Amino acid sequence: MILTVTLNTALDLTYGVPELVPHASHRVGDVAERPGGKGLNVARVLSALGQATVVTGFAGGSTGAALRELLAHLPPRDTTGTDTRAAAATVIPAATPATVIPAVTPAPITDALVTIAGNTRRTIAVVDRATGDTTQLNEPGPLVTADEWAALLGRYEELLTGADAVALCGSLPPGIHVGAYAELVRLARAAGVPVLLDTSGEPLRRGIAARPDLIKPNAEELAQLTGSREPLRATRDARRRGAHGVIASLGPDGMLAVTPDGVWRASPPAEVRGNPTGAGDSAVAGLLSGLVEGLSWPDRLRRAVALSTATVLSPTAGDFDRAAYEELLPGVGVEEHTAAAREAVG
Amino acid sequence: MILTVTLNTALDLTYGVPELVPHASHRVGDVAERPGGKGLNVARVLSALGQATVVTGFAGGSTGAALRELLAHLPPRDTTGTDTRAAAATVIPAATPATVIPAVTPAPITDALVTIAGNTRRTIAVVDRATGDTTQLNEPGPLVTADEWAALLGRYEELLTGADAVALCGSLPPGIHVGAYAELVRLARAAGVPVLLDTSGEPLRRGIAARPDLIKPNAEELAQLTGSREPLRATRDARRRGAHGVIASLGPDGMLAVTPDGVWRASPPAEVRGNPTGAGDSAVAGLLSGLVEGLSWPDRLRRAVALSTATVLSPTAGDFDRAAYEELLPGVGVEEHTAAAREAVG
Repeated sequence: MILTVTLNTALDLTYGVPELVPHASHRVGDVAERPGGKGLNVARVLSALGQATVVTGFAGGSTGAALRELLAHLPPRDTTGTDTRAAAATVIPAATPATVIPAVTPAPITDALVTIAGNTRRTIAVVDRATGDTTQLNEPGPLVTADEWAALLGRYEELLTGADAVALCGSLPPGIHVGAYAELVRLARAAGVPVLLDTSGEPLRRGIAARPDLIKPNAEELAQLTGSREPLRATRDARRRGAHGVIASLGPDGMLAVTPDGVWRASPPAEVRGNPTGAGDSAVAGLLSGLVEGLSWPDRLRRAVALSTATVLSPTAGDFDRAAYEELLPGVGVEEHTAAAREAVG
Repeated sequence: MILTVTLNTALDLTYGVPELVPHASHRVGDVAERPGGKGLNVARVLSALGQATVVTGFAGGSTGAALRELLAHLPPRDTTGTDTRAAAATVIPAATPATVIPAVTPAPITDALVTIAGNTRRTIAVVDRATGDTTQLNEPGPLVTADEWAALLGRYEELLTGADAVALCGSLPPGIHVGAYAELVRLARAAGVPVLLDTSGEPLRRGIAARPDLIKPNAEELAQLTGSREPLRATRDARRRGAHGVIASLGPDGMLAVTPDGVWRASPPAEVRGNPTGAGDSAVAGLLSGLVEGLSWPDRLRRAVALSTATVLSPTAGDFDRAAYEELLPGVGVEEHTAAAREAVG
């Protein structure tokens, strides 16, 4: 199984309104609720890819209870293999049978969250129905105590014994020390479990020094970490800081992977428009599922780019459009950088 | 005890942000949660006035559970008689001992809500901290089933046997028939319990026909009901439609009371600036507590106007500032309309 860690889980609410007008009163037309936080988003995509996943992190209070109740109902019925197959069949031309991917039955997501006294935060995405523009309101996370952090460490060490890979995702809630991810990276490496770290700022800087197998910064996070906006230079700098492999997600430009095995650039077949929320989480799921399935780097990158592009295209923020994913996958271009090109950037 | 009925309860959230900017992402600085819906607001004020109150209506799902948990902690510790006394002492000049009101110990609020399968709605008030301007987002209420409505009717009839007065407050959730308040008014009258109806639109129109003892429309609700924006004319029209007494709340102009015992106009001592949220609910609490205490109409109106003005002045939306209330009370002007003036408007 794949383990995902979300220290700052969230109950994600989406409100549809005709238009958000400051200082006016709005009747919300429709409300969607789902379990959120980056590691839970990664788990949902892993499940859809057929990878059994265990989620840990913190949940508490009435919002934590609501989150766990929603989590217990994942994967939802309408993403079963049969339905997916039918949807995919409508977009894959009969002339390209090589691109047809076997139907996937969603795998279970196991709740191994640690209960805390504080109230899990809510995030609210207010979507203007006319334009699709989103206004985001994010509550601060709950204060986590030292005892609760100790309980998480115990739970994490137990779970590592059965994990094929682990993803450490998102921000730190109040009360958690800034070196928390470094501690979790060290424990994973000591247990011999490949570990991917996806966070930002000081927790990322500290976490990298503990030598994670992979980090997946976006251009902004990479620039903040290294001071450079030149992707290849910044990515190599991030490796020197301790990350064994760096997969930089460059939005519409795809991904740049600098690994011990080589350097690759992966690009989506075409530019797409949509909501980028969750695209990075889908990429993490693609990379980790490819790792545990023993795929080559180019195939892992193809999967990550196709999943992330299919997430931008999905009408529901953070979900991926499976039909689009299957259609996009064979079209993702992966180019290996030659040793000469690599040397050129030092 | 006084019974309040809130068919469409809400978990009220207040989010503080520096400034709400559409289509941007906001970190919410502070989050306040409280049990909401008009009848629960009325109950909170009644409790602060020392009136034992029972609340009924519907609550369900994780938000309903959160609401009930918050309700169980009301009245809060910081409104105990002792604290209140100390706060009041700082604003009442020693030269006017006649205006000092005995310290009041908050009375209990008893939860007699009916549990439903649906999820209690949330309302979110996003407050710009710089200006105090508020953007309101109100979720739709849960769908209430016929069985749940029947359970509410049973609960209500039981509670009426111990009630000195009842307030029926706010909007109807989906699934509840538009004549619901008329049905509740009839049951209260059959039980001989004075009933105040505070709602709007068609539920108000239907409810009035069942002859409630009191209605408390604002100018807008009164105009919508009667087609007239002339307060005395509209108020008299509302009486002809069935309400025994009509207390029109006219914002900064105070209140106009047209009752079987006479016609009065009550005005706050001075114009105040602040947040009018909940001012109407405080007025309802003032009117009902005055009724069960056997106060004269002028004294009930003084209390209602002072409470409602002290609510506008409170830094927390919907709470009233007790020191301001006690200071305002003796200054509320109440003027009786003469028979001649009454005849003049027909």
